[in-house]
Amino acid sequence: MFDKFKDECGVFGVYGHPEASKLTYLGLYALQHRGQESAGIAAADGDRVRLVKQMGYVNDIFDEPTLATLPGTVAIGHTRYSTAGDSKLSNAQPILIDCVHGQVGICHNGNIVNANEIRDRLVRAGSIFQTNSDTEVVLHLYARSQAGSIEDALVESITQLTGAFSFALITQHALIAVRDPHGFRPLALGRLGDAWAVTSETCALDLIGFSYVRDVEPGEVLIIGPQGVRSIKPFPSAPLSHCIFEHVYFARPDSDVFGESVNEVRTNLGRALARETGVAADVVVPIPDSGVCAAIGYSDESRVPMRFGLIRNHYVGRTFIEPAQSIRHFGVKVKLNTVRSILEGRRVVLIDDSLVRGTTSRKIVRMVRAAGAKQVHLRISCPPTVSPCFYGVDTPRRRELIAATHSQEEIRKYVGADSLGYLSLDGLLSSVKTRSTSYCTSCYTGSYPVAFPRDESGYLQLSLKIDGQVEPLPEEEPETVV
Amino acid sequence: MFDKFKDECGVFGVYGHPEASKLTYLGLYALQHRGQESAGIAAADGDRVRLVKQMGYVNDIFDEPTLATLPGTVAIGHTRYSTAGDSKLSNAQPILIDCVHGQVGICHNGNIVNANEIRDRLVRAGSIFQTNSDTEVVLHLYARSQAGSIEDALVESITQLTGAFSFALITQHALIAVRDPHGFRPLALGRLGDAWAVTSETCALDLIGFSYVRDVEPGEVLIIGPQGVRSIKPFPSAPLSHCIFEHVYFARPDSDVFGESVNEVRTNLGRALARETGVAADVVVPIPDSGVCAAIGYSDESRVPMRFGLIRNHYVGRTFIEPAQSIRHFGVKVKLNTVRSILEGRRVVLIDDSLVRGTTSRKIVRMVRAAGAKQVHLRISCPPTVSPCFYGVDTPRRRELIAATHSQEEIRKYVGADSLGYLSLDGLLSSVKTRSTSYCTSCYTGSYPVAFPRDESGYLQLSLKIDGQVEPLPEEEPETVV
Amino acid sequence: MFDKFKDECGVFGVYGHPEASKLTYLGLYALQHRGQESAGIAAADGDRVRLVKQMGYVNDIFDEPTLATLPGTVAIGHTRYSTAGDSKLSNAQPILIDCVHGQVGICHNGNIVNANEIRDRLVRAGSIFQTNSDTEVVLHLYARSQAGSIEDALVESITQLTGAFSFALITQHALIAVRDPHGFRPLALGRLGDAWAVTSETCALDLIGFSYVRDVEPGEVLIIGPQGVRSIKPFPSAPLSHCIFEHVYFARPDSDVFGESVNEVRTNLGRALARETGVAADVVVPIPDSGVCAAIGYSDESRVPMRFGLIRNHYVGRTFIEPAQSIRHFGVKVKLNTVRSILEGRRVVLIDDSLVRGTTSRKIVRMVRAAGAKQVHLRISCPPTVSPCFYGVDTPRRRELIAATHSQEEIRKYVGADSLGYLSLDGLLSSVKTRSTSYCTSCYTGSYPVAFPRDESGYLQLSLKIDGQVEPLPEEEPETVV
Amino acid sequence: MFDKFKDECGVFGVYGHPEASKLTYLGLYALQHRGQESAGIAAADGDRVRLVKQMGYVNDIFDEPTLATLPGTVAIGHTRYSTAGDSKLSNAQPILIDCVHGQVGICHNGNIVNANEIRDRLVRAGSIFQTNSDTEVVLHLYARSQAGSIEDALVESITQLTGAFSFALITQHALIAVRDPHGFRPLALGRLGDAWAVTSETCALDLIGFSYVRDVEPGEVLIIGPQGVRSIKPFPSAPLSHCIFEHVYFARPDSDVFGESVNEVRTNLGRALARETGVAADVVVPIPDSGVCAAIGYSDESRVPMRFGLIRNHYVGRTFIEPAQSIRHFGVKVKLNTVRSILEGRRVVLIDDSLVRGTTSRKIVRMVRAAGAKQVHLRISCPPTVSPCFYGVDTPRRRELIAATHSQEEIRKYVGADSLGYLSLDGLLSSVKTRSTSYCTSCYTGSYPVAFPRDESGYLQLSLKIDGQVEPLPEEEPETVV
Repeated sequence: MFDKFKDECGVFGVYGHPEASKLTYLGLYALQHRGQESAGIAAADGDRVRLVKQMGYVNDIFDEPTLATLPGTVAIGHTRYSTAGDSKLSNAQPILIDCVHGQVGICHNGNIVNANEIRDRLVRAGSIFQTNSDTEVVLHLYARSQAGSIEDALVESITQLTGAFSFALITQHALIAVRDPHGFRPLALGRLGDAWAVTSETCALDLIGFSYVRDVEPGEVLIIGPQGVRSIKPFPSAPLSHCIFEHVYFARPDSDVFGESVNEVRTNLGRALARETGVAADVVVPIPDSGVCAAIGYSDESRVPMRFGLIRNHYVGRTFIEPAQSIRHFGVKVKLNTVRSILEGRRVVLIDDSLVRGTTSRKIVRMVRAAGAKQVHLRISCPPTVSPCFYGVDTPRRRELIAATHSQEEIRKYVGADSLGYLSLDGLLSSVKTRSTSYCTSCYTGSYPVAFPRDESGYLQLSLKIDGQVEPLPEEEPETVV
Repeated sequence: MFDKFKDECGVFGVYGHPEASKLTYLGLYALQHRGQESAGIAAADGDRVRLVKQMGYVNDIFDEPTLATLPGTVAIGHTRYSTAGDSKLSNAQPILIDCVHGQVGICHNGNIVNANEIRDRLVRAGSIFQTNSDTEVVLHLYARSQAGSIEDALVESITQLTGAFSFALITQHALIAVRDPHGFRPLALGRLGDAWAVTSETCALDLIGFSYVRDVEPGEVLIIGPQGVRSIKPFPSAPLSHCIFEHVYFARPDSDVFGESVNEVRTNLGRALARETGVAADVVVPIPDSGVCAAIGYSDESRVPMRFGLIRNHYVGRTFIEPAQSIRHFGVKVKLNTVRSILEGRRVVLIDDSLVRGTTSRKIVRMVRAAGAKQVHLRISCPPTVSPCFYGVDTPRRRELIAATHSQEEIRKYVGADSLGYLSLDGLLSSVKTRSTSYCTSCYTGSYPVAFPRDESGYLQLSLKIDGQVEPLPEEEPETVV
Repeated sequence: MFDKFKDECGVFGVYGHPEASKLTYLGLYALQHRGQESAGIAAADGDRVRLVKQMGYVNDIFDEPTLATLPGTVAIGHTRYSTAGDSKLSNAQPILIDCVHGQVGICHNGNIVNANEIRDRLVRAGSIFQTNSDTEVVLHLYARSQAGSIEDALVESITQLTGAFSFALITQHALIAVRDPHGFRPLALGRLGDAWAVTSETCALDLIGFSYVRDVEPGEVLIIGPQGVRSIKPFPSAPLSHCIFEHVYFARPDSDVFGESVNEVRTNLGRALARETGVAADVVVPIPDSGVCAAIGYSDESRVPMRFGLIRNHYVGRTFIEPAQSIRHFGVKVKLNTVRSILEGRRVVLIDDSLVRGTTSRKIVRMVRAAGAKQVHLRISCPPTVSPCFYGVDTPRRRELIAATHSQEEIRKYVGADSLGYLSLDGLLSSVKTRSTSYCTSCYTGSYPVAFPRDESGYLQLSLKIDGQVEPLPEEEPETVV
Repeated sequence: MFDKFKDECGVFGVYGHPEASKLTYLGLYALQHRGQESAGIAAADGDRVRLVKQMGYVNDIFDEPTLATLPGTVAIGHTRYSTAGDSKLSNAQPILIDCVHGQVGICHNGNIVNANEIRDRLVRAGSIFQTNSDTEVVLHLYARSQAGSIEDALVESITQLTGAFSFALITQHALIAVRDPHGFRPLALGRLGDAWAVTSETCALDLIGFSYVRDVEPGEVLIIGPQGVRSIKPFPSAPLSHCIFEHVYFARPDSDVFGESVNEVRTNLGRALARETGVAADVVVPIPDSGVCAAIGYSDESRVPMRFGLIRNHYVGRTFIEPAQSIRHFGVKVKLNTVRSILEGRRVVLIDDSLVRGTTSRKIVRMVRAAGAKQVHLRISCPPTVSPCFYGVDTPRRRELIAATHSQEEIRKYVGADSLGYLSLDGLLSSVKTRSTSYCTSCYTGSYPVAFPRDESGYLQLSLKIDGQVEPLPEEEPETVV
């Protein structure tokens, strides 16, 4: 509900464990933050692959009787976030088919950039698509492959793809993990005895007691089956493009992604932010929950004490009912409340991890002022987001990104802060240990590492203006009194 | 799911607002932490009182069509926690009846100590009880009163009660708030224009934009109706007995209760804890979410930095499925994960607000050690809990309270910490501004401000021994490997 | 959905069978035609009485897991029809309470004429009513009785009642059957080995393999418990008043009620109707399903062959969706269709069991004409219904009964038949073997065997005119074309 | 639940009506007897085709809000019965796809005999099947067609099929009806003003006020779109093979199928049966509901009066709970009860429309004897069924058909009747007006008008013996007493 980029998926898979579907359920539990619209599990018992998927949370979809319908020692699972337009069960994953090569199920985190091109070609040849997800093209390529083996058919299929893809696939007998050669999205490998797991984030391994082995490498295909674990690298080499936003916002702080502790990186972002944008203040207040790590770092570096001046209500559901006589800043109030004893009379540094449209920030700044803050200084622990993502992140169109169309001073005025500070791109990249060129920073720079195949309508929506006009900033709701 | 005392209820009421049931829904939303088993709203339109109540969360029970069945400008609502035995819809509140005095609905936070005595008397006289809740006796006393007015009938009824009770009542025309003369449970009064609200905690007023006026006073009856607000004090005077546990754990930190900011009190507890039980350490880690305020205070006082070394998964539902091949500390792991980069090699001070049976603490200490901590020092921001509560808090029987039957050193060994420190009773009482005799501390002292009427079975369960034996400490689950 | 009087309930009870609740479920299954709005079962295992009741059909409410929550060798059950106003779960039966005499549950078929008087008295004395059903007064009288035994308390309670009541009651240990001294509603006793059953109709005994023993006698109380079966007769003697409408329409033709085969009586009605109202015709067509037995008798007596010229769709649910562009006679068409090959060019005698408002008959006559009938002669196998029932049957108010306010010729014109014939009261009473004075015929005569205690609003609604006007006959829906 | 052949589907379609989906819902309502497992509707508004389908009854699936999601002036619908193995939602119809020719939805009554052959070929070429229904092959053939128009692509697809098929198809703009050249299953055309409808049975036209125009002819494709109604006949001519079982049992008696009144044919069957198998008797009793028409004919011809000696409980749901202490003939008793006053001491002719395994007949004969019948003569209004159907009817395997493996005398003994009589094949064919060679009688003769393409496993199951043994007749359930 907050004004954030949205991660689109979490993928998980396990091989060689008698409770494969139960471990997958737990893995998805730990990956629930990566997608809350639908979830699914497919499991194989050596004979058949079975599937359960539904709209909703992992915990609401799966219970003991449901998991009992998913026997076998191999399983894959998926949690999905999706934009409104295609939020329907048929698009939920895993997608499972039966074809000339047998049954195969797939889970995908990322975005296949040339999916529409491939799809058009296949439809013209008579393929019937059941979903409008980009992922389904992989299955049709696979079903049409005349290759003699499952592995060859798979390689023939995935090497036609461009873009971002971390896949977990399941056959009657094997778990297969695939990561695109750029390594856009994370995918880690874990182990417990003879059992193996792959997961978008390592926090899922912690929950089920598996130890982290290594990441599935960019461009690697891992086939984990009765013959053991086999790695092949069918893609031509490509520059690395890890998504920096996993560290900024998406991943859980207790995960390691791209080989680094998210908590450490995020705390470093706060420290760098304090160095770059420090201001005289009495208290550092994170916008919970995502601003907490950076606030710790900011406080640590600036020696300004951190306090929880905003309290989050964790019982908030997906929807809530608003009174007709609208309450000021209601949408934010229902999730956050101020603590007057912390804010009153103080100079407050508010820490957030990102700022997309600015609408939520504007409401929070006003709430903080209404609780008596003397000054409000908003600090963002990443650079201004100026470009949409095409590699598996749900972002608004460019013209809705406030930083794409307005100056920092205009934004400050809009959100109503006394001062506004962003972390610089250098500050961001200095906070990770990895070589900075390993990261995709297209949302901050507009420089895209994988080209778009066609200058099509979706692409044109990137333009900043409608009919020559910059998108107007959203109005505050009317200042009615309850 | 954690090893905590449980608050039993939140009550809310509103008078004189065209969207009374919607505001009540929002009020309950903000009070959801006080009870998650059932919720209900009764609303009056001057002609009839209507009721909706269900098992479940506020947000799952009420939607627009449901609220549309609750028209009127007066409403009361309730969120309920209950022990397993009587967790059923008939015990959910509000309880609504029609009687010779008209319709009346009631919401209750607290516990009527002489309810069983009154109930037995009424049943012998032919009253038919529909629930096994203590609250229903109030309604039967009221229905049988031959007093000539609603007010007189109510006073005649409530003055027969002893114990803890903060009531919100509704009639066809009025909202009535009652607080027992000891003031055990909180009840605050708020206002917006001509509309009035009563609420267990002030955070509910913040959400709906009402301002806090004052607390309903101990022993006060507030009748808010077409004739305005009238206060009567029908009880003989009694010593104050505010529940100190509201500050220690129950209330939200963004609320004021008993006239003080919960956040401030709770942070003070952490400071006092640091002064009393300080130890050389590298990092202060709260057990989230309830240990956070005290950890802030402890860190502030001790100058040891605070870090979030334990991450809570907020997507955890009420139930979850455990693998047959059990995972170590699974019950805790599913809710909390460690952040190795924070804990590894460090001397850790773990801060929790209370310790009841010790079972959860024992698991958390082990998890923290498994993440590489060099030392683990457990600090509890209140004194040892040695006695059950009989005033509206769900507590285990005395013999299950580890501090009632074991020495501090035995507890330290059981939880596996390098050291264990509790806040002293003096330290606790010095953290509130109010005169310390205003508080009930019976759970720490066994000294009960309101006597129990009969030496009955429930009371005997207080004894520390079963057949002469101290309750054995729960075993760790078997050390199986997944 | 048809224009009929509605029976209000079926009651059933079993004692001394290890599958008491399952047999009760089956008994209700067989009594489903007596009430389709809600159903419930209470069962006793010697220690506790447990209850399940819901809105809906017996078959939708009870499944194996639900019945497993109702253990014990004693059970009672109820199917309920109710008017719109009080169609809610709290009014469903059995009603179960706990009181000073222990637990007691009750099922009721009939109507307690002095319920409001008793209720007012009890409410003034402080009783809290949970339902608006007349049945609840019995329980409050029982709970307030200071009698020393269950039996005495029950006798003290039921002897205060006037009106129609066939009760099945359950305690922790016994099944109790009660029938009012007039014997308005049926109640039969069955047996299999040491197990006993009571039921509104004998068809329920057939299903569960019990044999019919005798009727519970008017004014009899049967206590079936560990001490065996005991009969007491606590009521002063009263004239018999069996409901003749049970034979005319309510009961299933495979039941015996009041000691006679419903099928035989109903076929006799058809024979008498042919004798009284015979007309030259080609085919006799019953309005299914209730007109079938009388049509058989009519055809047999008149030697005019019977054919199924109207076919009923048995898949019709409670509700159905009508097109906006309304279809002629839609409400009837969705349930009945004509068979042109039977009706075309024929002189048709339509047989129905009763005619209340005339609205459905009017539509059916038109449909039959539209299918080509040359003449349509409507024959009703009972006299004109001119008065509402106050003894447990749901009937419209008097002014809505077409025969109360219009002449037979006016009705004939309204329904559009070539001729209309009713059975005479003598013809009706000659069709049963029992002495004719044993029957209540108040709906045909307006002569009520049990007086109403007060001249209250409900009674005044009997008047035939509103503001001096006779109720206008309902208009045909507009003659739109789809 | 009775021992009957099962019709597999009802199809319906409407073109050119503003409430197309509502009329389709009503059409399915009238066709509910042709399939009760699932139902669905697809509707087109000129731009998009939308689909709703679910397991369950038409009336439970569709309500106003659901139908509101199906706007447009064209719609098709389907009710489905299916064998246990493939009773799942994905097999429900309509099946809707999007392909290179646009969206197309299909409903099917019948069975495509060469579906497996076609499917294997398509899968090898890379098609992905989503269901295991034979109908889906039509859509894949269509999607792969390189023909330039929808019509050409459709013709190219359907001319590859052999077997029984009455299709209703929908595109964004048109309704298309197809009937196989043998005319196995019925399909009628109706009209109201400018709107058109197609339906499996004419009773659906009656309900919505459309008039019957003619049957869709065998081998005809009717394209009803903005350009009007166009008929093409793309199939080579073939001998007619109308399913005689539609008249014997499947169709509603108020329908006309294959140009004749079902009621008339079915009554004729009864007359012929009386002529062929007459016996001295006191009463003719139909086994309801399907035996009623034939019983009317039998009674008429034989002058033995017909009475309803078996009463059907129309409240029986799909499932019911049986007591552990089983009741004799329970499965039949729950649906049928005897009327002793009709049967006792009588010589009874029981009329049924067909006899498949004989298990239900055996129970009914015993029930009728238990109700006191002196003699029981069972008469079946069609010949012995000796062969399974492969053209869209769900039948047991041949060895389960009692008449395939036992003599008439053996069957008589098994069912326990005093005599048993079947209608002869000549008697059957003489009851229809159409030339008798127009009908498929393969279930009575084993002579199949369309050959099976492969001698595959399904076909081999036809053999009469398992391991050289005739299937033993099912035992009566043990003669336990409740």
